Amino acid sequence: MTTAAECCDLILFGSLGDLARRKLLPALYQLEKAELLHAESRIIGVARDAMSAEDFRERVQQSLKEFVTKEQIDNEVWQRFAKKLHYCGLDLADLEAYDDLAQLVTPNQRAPICYFATPPSLFPVICDGLASIKLNQAPTRVVLEKPLGHDLASCCKINQHVARYFDESQVYRIDHYLGKETVLNLLALRFANSIFSDQWNHNTIDHIQITAAEQVGVEGRWGYYDDAGQLRDMVQNHLLQVLSLIAMEPPTRLDAESIREEKLKVLKSLRPITQANVNEDTVRGQYAAGFVGENRVPGYMEEEGAVGKSSTETFVGLKVHIDNWRWSGVPFYLRTGKRMPQKRTEVVITFKPQPHNIFHETLNQLPPNRLIIRLQPDEGVEIQMMNKVPGLGKRMQLKPTTLDLSFYETFENKRIADAYERLLLEAIEGNQYLFVHREEVEHAWRWIDGIRSAWTQLEKAPKPYAAGTWGPVASVTLMAQDGREWDDES
Amino acid sequence: MTTAAECCDLILFGSLGDLARRKLLPALYQLEKAELLHAESRIIGVARDAMSAEDFRERVQQSLKEFVTKEQIDNEVWQRFAKKLHYCGLDLADLEAYDDLAQLVTPNQRAPICYFATPPSLFPVICDGLASIKLNQAPTRVVLEKPLGHDLASCCKINQHVARYFDESQVYRIDHYLGKETVLNLLALRFANSIFSDQWNHNTIDHIQITAAEQVGVEGRWGYYDDAGQLRDMVQNHLLQVLSLIAMEPPTRLDAESIREEKLKVLKSLRPITQANVNEDTVRGQYAAGFVGENRVPGYMEEEGAVGKSSTETFVGLKVHIDNWRWSGVPFYLRTGKRMPQKRTEVVITFKPQPHNIFHETLNQLPPNRLIIRLQPDEGVEIQMMNKVPGLGKRMQLKPTTLDLSFYETFENKRIADAYERLLLEAIEGNQYLFVHREEVEHAWRWIDGIRSAWTQLEKAPKPYAAGTWGPVASVTLMAQDGREWDDES
Repeated sequence: MTTAAECCDLILFGSLGDLARRKLLPALYQLEKAELLHAESRIIGVARDAMSAEDFRERVQQSLKEFVTKEQIDNEVWQRFAKKLHYCGLDLADLEAYDDLAQLVTPNQRAPICYFATPPSLFPVICDGLASIKLNQAPTRVVLEKPLGHDLASCCKINQHVARYFDESQVYRIDHYLGKETVLNLLALRFANSIFSDQWNHNTIDHIQITAAEQVGVEGRWGYYDDAGQLRDMVQNHLLQVLSLIAMEPPTRLDAESIREEKLKVLKSLRPITQANVNEDTVRGQYAAGFVGENRVPGYMEEEGAVGKSSTETFVGLKVHIDNWRWSGVPFYLRTGKRMPQKRTEVVITFKPQPHNIFHETLNQLPPNRLIIRLQPDEGVEIQMMNKVPGLGKRMQLKPTTLDLSFYETFENKRIADAYERLLLEAIEGNQYLFVHREEVEHAWRWIDGIRSAWTQLEKAPKPYAAGTWGPVASVTLMAQDGREWDDES
Repeated sequence: MTTAAECCDLILFGSLGDLARRKLLPALYQLEKAELLHAESRIIGVARDAMSAEDFRERVQQSLKEFVTKEQIDNEVWQRFAKKLHYCGLDLADLEAYDDLAQLVTPNQRAPICYFATPPSLFPVICDGLASIKLNQAPTRVVLEKPLGHDLASCCKINQHVARYFDESQVYRIDHYLGKETVLNLLALRFANSIFSDQWNHNTIDHIQITAAEQVGVEGRWGYYDDAGQLRDMVQNHLLQVLSLIAMEPPTRLDAESIREEKLKVLKSLRPITQANVNEDTVRGQYAAGFVGENRVPGYMEEEGAVGKSSTETFVGLKVHIDNWRWSGVPFYLRTGKRMPQKRTEVVITFKPQPHNIFHETLNQLPPNRLIIRLQPDEGVEIQMMNKVPGLGKRMQLKPTTLDLSFYETFENKRIADAYERLLLEAIEGNQYLFVHREEVEHAWRWIDGIRSAWTQLEKAPKPYAAGTWGPVASVTLMAQDGREWDDES
């Protein structure tokens, strides 16, 4: 079925960190299990601690036991995997220390893939270090984790530093939303089915909602979060990436260049949010104490570590206009927040209502068709449509019915791969189509900076909302002023 | 849920005949079971034999035992039903005998609904009889079974005779295909869902196939069948009715006038088949000996009762053009035949292929989306679309998947009502929207007569095909000359 990927040295910076332990190592284990890693490939853990490869293997085994939760670790797979694990203790700030790494890697035999799973503040120094050992030439690739800066200026600075040593074709910027099965299926749905591709525009679509709701609060990281806020933490990357894929023109080819070009065009078409429209088109919220399920939870300013007064938003609602031919007059409503009633990430595409209702005798108003793309908690694609209720009831009785378009049951392989498995595999394959181009991330920041600047000029505090609710009332109004409502209200 | 229909006297002419026994009485029993008949309504069997109501009830009970096959007759329901059954022995040709019927019915209390389940040759004399006892004035209705004539002239003659006594608003012409659950769901799908209604035209639909395949042969009725042939027996009524519903413009209202007006417009837009295009657009076949499943079956001319030489067709394939704005350039391919490999009635709507394939690396050709409306043997609606195969396979793997749009499982009431149950109920309700208007049936005959006349001028015998195949090779060519193929070949 599948053949193993290219032979590589995956050099994992930050290999003892949270991301590596929770996501990357479990994903690599799954790739090994699926025999998708080349037999000669290696995973070279890098971190500050001095330890032997054997010690590292033990730490990795611990992580797998902790974070591969849905299944038992297969011993045979683990034995194969363990043999691939190597380690290099390294003070990332010490340029001379990189020589140890140079001793380990074998660029002529294995493509070096440097995964930066460290805080972004370390990206520049790692780049310097890699360059010092000439590990910046093709076929070397670098994989960058978010956040890439906290505004346009800081993002450009990182990108410029990376670009000093690496060509854009070597740079893989991660947004793990792009690795989700459902997001990829969206490409299949949109471009392999004329019933969708022919209707993907302002003629037939009424509006689009993108929701990324978290149930958690700041999780003990108040200080870190307070510097960022929901707009930068969620909208700048994940929500704008999903929006780009939904809104982009059909790409000429299914390759990185075509797809990223089209996504970039969407980002360039976003109508700027300025003082003129910030009041009408944005909602900022900050959670107050409330209940999530049965549990009473503190407000944002009562969280551990909270100090002073903060106008950081934990909720954003946006009405976004894409000023191009396809989407003229079709608003994209975005919202994301912490302490929402449930964890849920989904896109809802609402088609225009039928212009005329011939079923009015039994149904006053025909609900519009809706296509729902769910990314979390369970991935899936559904369509909501109207059907006749079978039977002999008087006249024609209709009923909205939900149709599962994802069909996971009908395929042999039921397990949905984690986004990181796919992204690691694509990076190993040298395929950039699921990674974010420098221009994309910079255009996204430019647009986000505009919103932040308009908020600053506004001098209004975020609106409070009780934890466990769908954000401030103003979020309802954002839709209601257009005669629409969020998916959870209907 | 449901409320019982209007109080009526259902006068069943031909109440001991095949149709009554197999279809009408079982359907009426089901309506009784579902408590859809008014408590005071009656069913008055009419036939030539003299017998008591009690005898008639016994005969009906026999029929139910024989033809209500999927369930046990419920005794309580039967008791209620039996009380409604009455009988009137009557020589239909004897006008004076109708007085007995006059004694029985109570037009002031119960709307008389006269169901003509007799050979059509008797329709005129029954009309005369009913008129003689003044049972032709509203609220009386007459329900006419097919065939309504064997060509335009004979059909007009029947219609004229009926119209002498009955206003068109009193006349209910049955085409039982119109009572099928799936056909009704088609109205819901088409007109309650913008994802379909917006694409129901030549811009997005490539072509439409309508297949009505029978596995049986002439079933011992060679003489009768040889006078008719497949074109008159199946195309003139069922196939053209289904075609009309598929092709019609959205009706202004869900009522008889609007719907029948739109269906009529379709029939008027059928491009005539004449000597000029009969060779290219029609295929005529007659089955030869062959195998249906394991069984060797005789050819049409070897059937019991076959005499002389016959050029009657047992298979018809047609390429039909609807010359209007919606369907310009979208051919409707119709085929129907006896001794096909299976019993199957379905409509396949094939959407246009994607203009460009970005998945060519893994899939050479993208199969088009198809909407399949199945009327027999199991009713259902399906859509065929392309999905991503979940998993980490190299690049994007796509797979066609079939989606059940009929959702019968999701509704409480799983049993699909027989077409006759619905049609009887609608006749009792006085709702004509599922019955065929005089102008429809006449226009259908006009178009069919054109084909028959072109065939006669052609002086060619029908092409032989082996029993158990999908008709003559020319049927394949009919599609292949346009670069298309029948559903069962793909």
